Amino acid sequence: MSSHLESSAPPVTRELAAFTVKAVHEGIAERTRREAVRTFVNWLGCAIGGARHPAVDIALDALAPYSGPAEFTVPGREPKADLFGATLAMGIASHVFDFDDTHLKTIIHPAGPVASALLPLSERDRLSGSAFLVALIVGVEVECRLGNAVYPAHYDIGWHITGTTGVFGAAAAASRVLGLDGDQATYALGIAGTQSSGFREMFGSMCKSFHVGAAAKNGLLAALLAQRGFTSSTRGIEAPRGFANVMSTTRDYDEISQDLGVRWESELNTYKPFACGIVIHPSIDGAVQVARDSGVAAEDVASIELTVHPLVLELTGNKAPKTGLQSKFSVFHAAAAGYIYGRAGEHEFSDEVVTDSCVIALRDKITASVGPGIREDEVRIVLTTRDGRRIEKHVEHSIGSLDRPLTDDGISAKFLDLAEAVIGRDAARRALESAWAVEGSEDLTQLLAIARSKPLRSAAE
Amino acid sequence: MSSHLESSAPPVTRELAAFTVKAVHEGIAERTRREAVRTFVNWLGCAIGGARHPAVDIALDALAPYSGPAEFTVPGREPKADLFGATLAMGIASHVFDFDDTHLKTIIHPAGPVASALLPLSERDRLSGSAFLVALIVGVEVECRLGNAVYPAHYDIGWHITGTTGVFGAAAAASRVLGLDGDQATYALGIAGTQSSGFREMFGSMCKSFHVGAAAKNGLLAALLAQRGFTSSTRGIEAPRGFANVMSTTRDYDEISQDLGVRWESELNTYKPFACGIVIHPSIDGAVQVARDSGVAAEDVASIELTVHPLVLELTGNKAPKTGLQSKFSVFHAAAAGYIYGRAGEHEFSDEVVTDSCVIALRDKITASVGPGIREDEVRIVLTTRDGRRIEKHVEHSIGSLDRPLTDDGISAKFLDLAEAVIGRDAARRALESAWAVEGSEDLTQLLAIARSKPLRSAAE
Repeated sequence: MSSHLESSAPPVTRELAAFTVKAVHEGIAERTRREAVRTFVNWLGCAIGGARHPAVDIALDALAPYSGPAEFTVPGREPKADLFGATLAMGIASHVFDFDDTHLKTIIHPAGPVASALLPLSERDRLSGSAFLVALIVGVEVECRLGNAVYPAHYDIGWHITGTTGVFGAAAAASRVLGLDGDQATYALGIAGTQSSGFREMFGSMCKSFHVGAAAKNGLLAALLAQRGFTSSTRGIEAPRGFANVMSTTRDYDEISQDLGVRWESELNTYKPFACGIVIHPSIDGAVQVARDSGVAAEDVASIELTVHPLVLELTGNKAPKTGLQSKFSVFHAAAAGYIYGRAGEHEFSDEVVTDSCVIALRDKITASVGPGIREDEVRIVLTTRDGRRIEKHVEHSIGSLDRPLTDDGISAKFLDLAEAVIGRDAARRALESAWAVEGSEDLTQLLAIARSKPLRSAAE
Repeated sequence: MSSHLESSAPPVTRELAAFTVKAVHEGIAERTRREAVRTFVNWLGCAIGGARHPAVDIALDALAPYSGPAEFTVPGREPKADLFGATLAMGIASHVFDFDDTHLKTIIHPAGPVASALLPLSERDRLSGSAFLVALIVGVEVECRLGNAVYPAHYDIGWHITGTTGVFGAAAAASRVLGLDGDQATYALGIAGTQSSGFREMFGSMCKSFHVGAAAKNGLLAALLAQRGFTSSTRGIEAPRGFANVMSTTRDYDEISQDLGVRWESELNTYKPFACGIVIHPSIDGAVQVARDSGVAAEDVASIELTVHPLVLELTGNKAPKTGLQSKFSVFHAAAAGYIYGRAGEHEFSDEVVTDSCVIALRDKITASVGPGIREDEVRIVLTTRDGRRIEKHVEHSIGSLDRPLTDDGISAKFLDLAEAVIGRDAARRALESAWAVEGSEDLTQLLAIARSKPLRSAAE
């Protein structure tokens, strides 16, 4: 920790810049790269899935009259967009369902800001899949290490940490693709940092996903400016009036410097199996398992008692949600939908499902109470049937946690679930295959072409 | 003052939005509008003067390959630019010499973010001069009232207050021109606020003026998004995790609400006579006056003793500046140049003047010490001549202060000084005349056309 006015802080901005421009494929272990591929596949599914959300439509419509050459793919949309429009749009799309990846140590959603800045540049420069992957890993590293350095104080102040650190990650990834040198990358991080922004107050509005798109767009702008010689402070992160002091009450620069290029935050990324806040995932997971294992039909359930971590009721205690958006803040709806449908994707949080009488009937039989010592990724469930049977289930680690990660098959299923509705079944399958193979691909041209598919009438119906 | 977690704060975001869309020309006193014209003339001179600074060239070059329709004037540059490029460029240009206006209560430079967002929309929509002026006044009001609410705590944390509040002012001005309703303007302020950013660490780099351009660009984007239905929190300013709580340790909402639409912050705007930090203006003013009144040639000066406010030495104590940029942080150079040239515009802070042997000779005869009770806009000067005469001068209020504002003629002279070098003498004079007449003009077309003039060879020489 450093005092507010310490001016002798280590030169972490320069360190991160040097790391950014020097990291090489060979220096990154296979397991790290493998996790980054999982991150990319999961992100692309979310980006395609959200691509036709009204927030994305609005953003692109608002920018259209002022847009530049439409040369950049927005995955999940047929028309291309201009550089900053595409970046903003795919950032919004990939986060709008709150379904993207989570760096559990900081609650950063790492891929969105980084990949959204990176993909358009990769498309333009026909970057190899391998170089793309390294840039993604580097961007995520910069972003998450900054998060580690200031979390939780920074988040507690009210900053949406994905936006505030994402702009650095986006700048770092773009700096690599643009071939910046260490000085330029230092400036890029400074120009990025001085745009760092995003309030948690915006949660529940379109601005939450806007933060991801804006971070991508602003980080990309920072790298483009630095490439041409635009200057900033060389100590944008650690200076007394730089990021770590202005935007946090505590900071630990060791989190930035230690083992940089040796251990990788990308390995700690996780993927949500369910399209809602991570805090109710154990309850959904448990409900899905109890339904499957017991075979008890919803109408034969007398009661379901959940014993949960305190945050579950604090954040998702809505007993009677009326809309899809509200239902994401109801552990009762989420567990009921999970029980009935065996899953909890975007569909299970739709207005239609929320107002379904069977779902409501089961939801009203569910109670939740706080249990001493229950962890955030844990739940205990007791189901009582109408005929008096008692069935218990203990989920020690929710699916999607670091201890029980979503499998590759789980990521694929999620991808298809998200992408099929937008680009059609066939394109979704081909895009998935191509995304898994990203590291060995010559460039991303084919994948991006598939991601622009329009669904066939039969698939859309 | 409100506690950090107070959620019952007054609905100031909605209040500012309602004010933004409802304010009318007739409700604004003549003296307020007159001051706004002075603000505009001063700003336009700065924008033209800085238009060919490398920071502006770099920004436009970096954006060029991705730019949209080049339909928007950047005053002082012949080629037009696209909407966001023009906005960013003129924001940078108008602040890059640190010569623009100052709201002394908050050290906000009000015009930059607001006018830079407003001018392109006014050009597109052929807005009347009168409507332009009202939008400028409204934007400045929103920006400065937010500043009043959080200053000085917000600034002391390390935020560049012109950037952080400017984005709100830009959004407000744009909201008016786009004809948003109260709900949309509320969202626009929210979308703007969640982009609020800019570290004081960046002072001394190109990012300082970038903050102004970015605030303009981001505020404009906020209004364009809100116009199409993009949503944010309706309490972006006052919510526990909104602007006033996240970005400041104190806040006074009365500063936002009280007499809104009755008293106007635009009336409190001031204009720098000298192209440097305001803290050394009294010393330059005094040196100019002593030289003029005494008629003592620089080579006949034995010593000049300045008695100054403590901040002068703290911020501008550089005894031997080597470059133009450094010389802005030297009260010794500034006073010497003021004495010799009778002024202190951009030229007097150029590398050429800083290394001039006559200037250096006089500079080395100048000493400065802190005087008890000397105010920030005050100085006492004692000049001793080689033949032993002693000449005293007391500047109670520096020229450019609220108590001794720069006259209209002073603003005109400053405008011409800045603009002539960029667009030529004739165009500068015509632009000045047109700018003073802005309120009665049908639209800004003619003025903007003049502002794109290329200097004649003879004028450029």
